[in-house]
Amino acid sequence: MERDFVAWLTRRQSPDPRLAAGLGDDAAVFSPFASGARLVAAVDAITDRVDFHIDATTPEAVGHKALGVNLSDLAAMAAAPLAYLAALVLPRDGGAGHDAAGLARGIHEGMARLAQRHGAVLAGGDTNTWDGPLAVSVTVLGLVGARGPLRRCGALPGDVLLVTGPLGGSLSGRHLAVAPRVSEMQELHGRHALHAAIDLSDGLALDASRLAEASGCGVELDLAAIPVHDDARAMAQKSGRSPLQHALGDGEDFEILIAAPADQVAAILSAPPSGLRIAAIGRCVPEAGLWQRDAQGNRSPLPATGYEHQGRTP
Amino acid sequence: MERDFVAWLTRRQSPDPRLAAGLGDDAAVFSPFASGARLVAAVDAITDRVDFHIDATTPEAVGHKALGVNLSDLAAMAAAPLAYLAALVLPRDGGAGHDAAGLARGIHEGMARLAQRHGAVLAGGDTNTWDGPLAVSVTVLGLVGARGPLRRCGALPGDVLLVTGPLGGSLSGRHLAVAPRVSEMQELHGRHALHAAIDLSDGLALDASRLAEASGCGVELDLAAIPVHDDARAMAQKSGRSPLQHALGDGEDFEILIAAPADQVAAILSAPPSGLRIAAIGRCVPEAGLWQRDAQGNRSPLPATGYEHQGRTP
Repeated sequence: MERDFVAWLTRRQSPDPRLAAGLGDDAAVFSPFASGARLVAAVDAITDRVDFHIDATTPEAVGHKALGVNLSDLAAMAAAPLAYLAALVLPRDGGAGHDAAGLARGIHEGMARLAQRHGAVLAGGDTNTWDGPLAVSVTVLGLVGARGPLRRCGALPGDVLLVTGPLGGSLSGRHLAVAPRVSEMQELHGRHALHAAIDLSDGLALDASRLAEASGCGVELDLAAIPVHDDARAMAQKSGRSPLQHALGDGEDFEILIAAPADQVAAILSAPPSGLRIAAIGRCVPEAGLWQRDAQGNRSPLPATGYEHQGRTP
Repeated sequence: MERDFVAWLTRRQSPDPRLAAGLGDDAAVFSPFASGARLVAAVDAITDRVDFHIDATTPEAVGHKALGVNLSDLAAMAAAPLAYLAALVLPRDGGAGHDAAGLARGIHEGMARLAQRHGAVLAGGDTNTWDGPLAVSVTVLGLVGARGPLRRCGALPGDVLLVTGPLGGSLSGRHLAVAPRVSEMQELHGRHALHAAIDLSDGLALDASRLAEASGCGVELDLAAIPVHDDARAMAQKSGRSPLQHALGDGEDFEILIAAPADQVAAILSAPPSGLRIAAIGRCVPEAGLWQRDAQGNRSPLPATGYEHQGRTP
């Protein structure tokens, strides 16, 4: 079956000049890099009953999310997607109404569709079956733009905090349909020389505190300015928590939190990248830690709630 | 716990000039590439009860194998290791006498020790827990040498087939202690301009047939010349199969099968890379397919036995 599967994977993808040797060898070979090129790389795995429920979704949606969360990491760096490699660990009996081979194809279909929209090419795959649930691990490679990589550590006191979309309640379903802000972040960083950014995967409060810590400053959020997603409002009607609490702590938003130079903010807000609703939600401050400012202008510490992974690094 | 884990991972590794930004950001950033540099990438996952038994081994051994099988793919391309990214999916309750965090650390220890020997730097990690068994997915990145990548597809009729060590019986334990032929293959390709190579992960017969198919030629093995590992002889005493059958079909040898220009073979065999026992075991022939030649010189088709993965690509 290997040959069939590799042949199928290879057919799915048009030849790409960036890949000198693609699937079917021991490793993929990338065409020569321009002098001074900088590469970025990140890995993220998603698993059944933690990041999705295979019985309640489609293989394509799982593939979409598995690649999407990784592309969101590239978006946060303002990098241009180059390639992805995927390792699938499949239940021997398949899932979502498919046998293992069908499941593998569906997942790859979902990844391939999203990859094509963002210019990423499949550069490696490994597919295994076992007596366990479904796990999908994806590694993405990207290229840094002329302005250099956007990192977590460049925020300065006085910077304005921007967020690329409304937050909260994504677990009601939106978390599967990740729309990584890839081209939008390249456009913003290219135009406005942003200072820092982080992907909002674990909740605004927790991720904002990470950006602050990496940058050696503090972060102050204007609670009334945080854009709350309709999903957060709907969820709040059942959860007993407020829509704002959902927006601060839910995670899996896959929007980007940006620290922008204050003198660029008017230009960013008046002409955002197409389709993006950007909101200014606070600022970087000299005092370390995470702070909230309420509608009356009073400042107090804000707990860094959110989803703590077992040990997530890039 | 994430911060502790990232801090621990970061401490484990000396600063490396090839990584402009390492762990703790959304993606790792690699220092500028020289003009014309070519990158290679491969991914492989290993899983509990398929590729190892966590209750019968150590976390360090699992980490060693997870990275080792990937470095073996780089070895087959004669590439120089650059970096690796690892996604761990851990049983919530841990394993091998460790809790989940201890298991994660042990696996990273095993990877880091092997990585250091081969010059690879950790460029990304994702660690998840779930209600399933242990799975470890590793992606490796490497750089192609001046001679270009060694691929599966370059063998020509008349080439001599070489193998870098004795084969068979690795499942009795050797499969965990992968010794990837990384520097040896760079040395051999640099000196002798090899034509093609493949990593022996799924069994000599099957992998030789893959090299033949990729190169558009056939492959003829001299059965009497195939170096049989002591493990294969020991296993044959219980299995009812011959040592040679084990050498042909077992897989997980992680030696390299090479197609070398015939005029280089005497030089290769008389002065092999330090520590390597290279054997000439056959040749490439114009007739497609896999052939065996017995001690009497008679040729007949050889079945491409071996381990067929669900769908393994680079």
